[in-house]
Amino acid sequence: MAQFINAKENLVVDSIDGVLRTGVSQGLARLDGYPHIKVLCRTDHKGSRVAVISGGGSGHEPAHAGYVGKGMLTAGVCGEVFASPSVNAVLAAILAVTGKGGCLLVVTNYTGDRLNFGLAAEKARALGKKVEMVVVGDDIAIPGIAQPRGISGTLFVQKIAGYLSERGASLAEVSKAAQQVAKSAVSLGISLSSCTLPGIGREDRVPEGKAELGLGIHGEPGVELIDFTGAKQAAAILCAKLFAHVAKAHSYAVIINNLGSTTPLEMGLITNEILSSSLAKKIKLVVGPAVMMTSLDMHGISVSLLPLTPRFEKALAADAAPLAWPGAFPHGKPKTIRLPAELKSKSAKPSANPELSGIIERACDVLLANETLLNALDAKVGDGDTGSTIAGAARNLKAGLGKMPLANAGDFFASLSENLTKTMGGSSGVLLAILFAAASVATTKNSAWAASLQVGLCRMMEYGGASAGDRTMIDALEPALAALVSGKSLAEAAIAARKGADATAKMTKAKAGRSAYVSSANLTGINDPGAEAVACLLEGLVNWK
Amino acid sequence: MAQFINAKENLVVDSIDGVLRTGVSQGLARLDGYPHIKVLCRTDHKGSRVAVISGGGSGHEPAHAGYVGKGMLTAGVCGEVFASPSVNAVLAAILAVTGKGGCLLVVTNYTGDRLNFGLAAEKARALGKKVEMVVVGDDIAIPGIAQPRGISGTLFVQKIAGYLSERGASLAEVSKAAQQVAKSAVSLGISLSSCTLPGIGREDRVPEGKAELGLGIHGEPGVELIDFTGAKQAAAILCAKLFAHVAKAHSYAVIINNLGSTTPLEMGLITNEILSSSLAKKIKLVVGPAVMMTSLDMHGISVSLLPLTPRFEKALAADAAPLAWPGAFPHGKPKTIRLPAELKSKSAKPSANPELSGIIERACDVLLANETLLNALDAKVGDGDTGSTIAGAARNLKAGLGKMPLANAGDFFASLSENLTKTMGGSSGVLLAILFAAASVATTKNSAWAASLQVGLCRMMEYGGASAGDRTMIDALEPALAALVSGKSLAEAAIAARKGADATAKMTKAKAGRSAYVSSANLTGINDPGAEAVACLLEGLVNWK
Repeated sequence: MAQFINAKENLVVDSIDGVLRTGVSQGLARLDGYPHIKVLCRTDHKGSRVAVISGGGSGHEPAHAGYVGKGMLTAGVCGEVFASPSVNAVLAAILAVTGKGGCLLVVTNYTGDRLNFGLAAEKARALGKKVEMVVVGDDIAIPGIAQPRGISGTLFVQKIAGYLSERGASLAEVSKAAQQVAKSAVSLGISLSSCTLPGIGREDRVPEGKAELGLGIHGEPGVELIDFTGAKQAAAILCAKLFAHVAKAHSYAVIINNLGSTTPLEMGLITNEILSSSLAKKIKLVVGPAVMMTSLDMHGISVSLLPLTPRFEKALAADAAPLAWPGAFPHGKPKTIRLPAELKSKSAKPSANPELSGIIERACDVLLANETLLNALDAKVGDGDTGSTIAGAARNLKAGLGKMPLANAGDFFASLSENLTKTMGGSSGVLLAILFAAASVATTKNSAWAASLQVGLCRMMEYGGASAGDRTMIDALEPALAALVSGKSLAEAAIAARKGADATAKMTKAKAGRSAYVSSANLTGINDPGAEAVACLLEGLVNWK
Repeated sequence: MAQFINAKENLVVDSIDGVLRTGVSQGLARLDGYPHIKVLCRTDHKGSRVAVISGGGSGHEPAHAGYVGKGMLTAGVCGEVFASPSVNAVLAAILAVTGKGGCLLVVTNYTGDRLNFGLAAEKARALGKKVEMVVVGDDIAIPGIAQPRGISGTLFVQKIAGYLSERGASLAEVSKAAQQVAKSAVSLGISLSSCTLPGIGREDRVPEGKAELGLGIHGEPGVELIDFTGAKQAAAILCAKLFAHVAKAHSYAVIINNLGSTTPLEMGLITNEILSSSLAKKIKLVVGPAVMMTSLDMHGISVSLLPLTPRFEKALAADAAPLAWPGAFPHGKPKTIRLPAELKSKSAKPSANPELSGIIERACDVLLANETLLNALDAKVGDGDTGSTIAGAARNLKAGLGKMPLANAGDFFASLSENLTKTMGGSSGVLLAILFAAASVATTKNSAWAASLQVGLCRMMEYGGASAGDRTMIDALEPALAALVSGKSLAEAAIAARKGADATAKMTKAKAGRSAYVSSANLTGINDPGAEAVACLLEGLVNWK
């Protein structure tokens, strides 16, 4: 399993340095104790305030180092991937940021973390520091377990403690609130895959059609392997279990956490399911959906709930500097805006114009007569449907002529553009629709229809990305329109179109259209079917006159 | 391939609604045209300003809808996954947000997007709107290609156009700047996997040890399959190719984009490689590392470069409301802070205390004598090493006694705590280290050593998470210390410890330690080895006296 790493040994320190090199780390520094001591600190923390310190194994990014910053953590202590940081690393963090205000350690409930943070706390106390510790065990996956794991609900504790510290609360106050949050937060995860351990790989553990419910964030298997039917079911199960377990309250905050490789599309969907459910009425604040506490690249989510008090609500909703904290916001039904009235295009009323009507009918007949020839040509250099595509549009146009506004060129071009988007498939339909739409606008400013079509051609080239010489219909259209605009006759324009179409047989590289995929050898000597269609059309009209 | 989706048909609209339900969408609404028209708009856009509209297929989240907000996009038009939005959807977006200021369409260079946005632009012009369009083709993967793809460099265009619009620039000015940015931005991607198409799955395309260089963001294969050796190589290749291709400039901005499921750890590492390379001197602004323009869950990255002018620099660095925009910041070497001096623990000087020295030696002898017995006991309920673990520590302690500060109980406990962290493995070593560290601090406040040890025991229970009745050493330690603190003799304490240790044989469920994994039937009748060790120790000391 390839990964964007170098030596596994330097992974964590080099990754932290990468983030520290960017502006995201403004106001942050690391302790100079690599590789054993991996600690990120605020450089702007006032010692009179309570330092809020958290940490644990790496592999859960942005937790915990990503939450170091004003309004949240004062320091983050990183271990190696999925391994608790050493006692010495925790002690270094405490000593580096703890002043008169003392410090609170926010520790996820894993034996290694508890013991290493615990011993560091005792050592810091021996050195005269005021240290309190809160252990977070918010995972409700295993009912009645003595030591539930600490997962994404830990973020509630970090945010609220960080807020209170910033507001100048005492260590006793911060600690008491943190304990209360830790006690009342509940979380549960569901996953469709395990995670890829750096240098080791990913265990293919979850069978097709199944999901793991109640997994940890260290790749440990879920408590249950359940049948999985989709986002709706996943959201319903998590919500039902969490609300059944959480203490009754007037309102709650929710964290919607991406465990790693769940796509933003899926996260949006899960969020929609959670926030449109009947339980959503009780949710007052939403944090996420976001990548907040991951299990490397696990394809899963975890959801956390916190019963709100006015104080907790205020603390969660307050701004915090760390970019990884996505904010806590109220939620509501998606706001909608009415579709613009102009979107329903008012087609101009049908109007008669016997001369134009005759020309169009003749043009359609010419194109219909060339259907087989054009298909045969396209079969050599494309997919053999140029004739049929054009004939289909011609048939429809002829049949609908009576309903079109023929008395005014601008209206006619607009109507033709609308027609082509509906009746002519492929890129060529849209390209011609663009040509006639732009010609319609140009006609209102410029009475000459040929010049208007030339404006349309420019737009078509602009959006289509092809120009003369690229072996497309442009090679015939451009010289023909140029002839007409300069006052030449239709016959002269037809000659120009023919010359242009025939020249495409020598163009051995198509830059646009389906012929772009055909080799030079196969293109040589064959006219481009689009250009040929233009030439045939003009020649047909001339011969009829 | 299971995913957190329901019906594929509703995936995109439900996902957009999920995000719209959250507070991230403050100031945003969607057009009421689901499912065909999927458009997110700012509700606070002033029509006199240029509307900046972008969009494309979904599956690239947070692009493009995630960038709708003050200072960036005015509207985002979403298609289905990897499919261009319809002409009607684009037109609806234009009509909904375009006022007197006109609008600029920022379009990624794919035929579908170009044509659909192009036709919509023509229709909007026909309805009297001022519309300009910029096509972004920043991908340098295929040299000399006529139509390079638009990838993450598109974000430079969106940000700079959005900034200029917000500053009141005219459509001509915004359009001109956007064209300049689009022309000069270059990007390149590298990936270790394809992406998982909703409801379809993931093609296992990239062989072990290989990477795709120059991939698109729609799952299309890379231009080259290269040997892959790690993050350093990936960063070096991307930087070398990008800098070879980009126009010469005094300084550049870089985007470091996660294509989907690359972990934050890997992204940090890649960032470290890019920003510590020799080319980094030319980089003035860094955007990311962040998930900015994805290809669903592709395990890859793309890097984009933009030659900076003072105006572009200002525009990129300015704040923007969309949370998906991670900011553009200068970079620099990671700041470091010296390790706290107190971290190097000053051990108290060795001092003599013949009485204590004798007790400790005797205690060590007792524990050594019980090594086999304790191992045998542990073999029945754990992993059979309790005796050896304790004996190892006892041997070290005895050998090092001459170097310990024995004259003062507080110093001795601190020194013993240090010793145990080094010489006694497993959780029990840290647990006892906590006990003695806390006892050391307590001793400085309270001369009675037994009471100090009792304080230490409390800390050990707090961090370790076990208490009396959980079938651990606490079951013997607690009653023994309680006896000593209440003034009873060592002999009486030994009797209490023995009683406590023997009681563990009836505890059929261990709540902590390795026995927690052993069935009740196997625990019945066997003393906990830790508690037994405590009882043996005290009995041994009493018998010696």
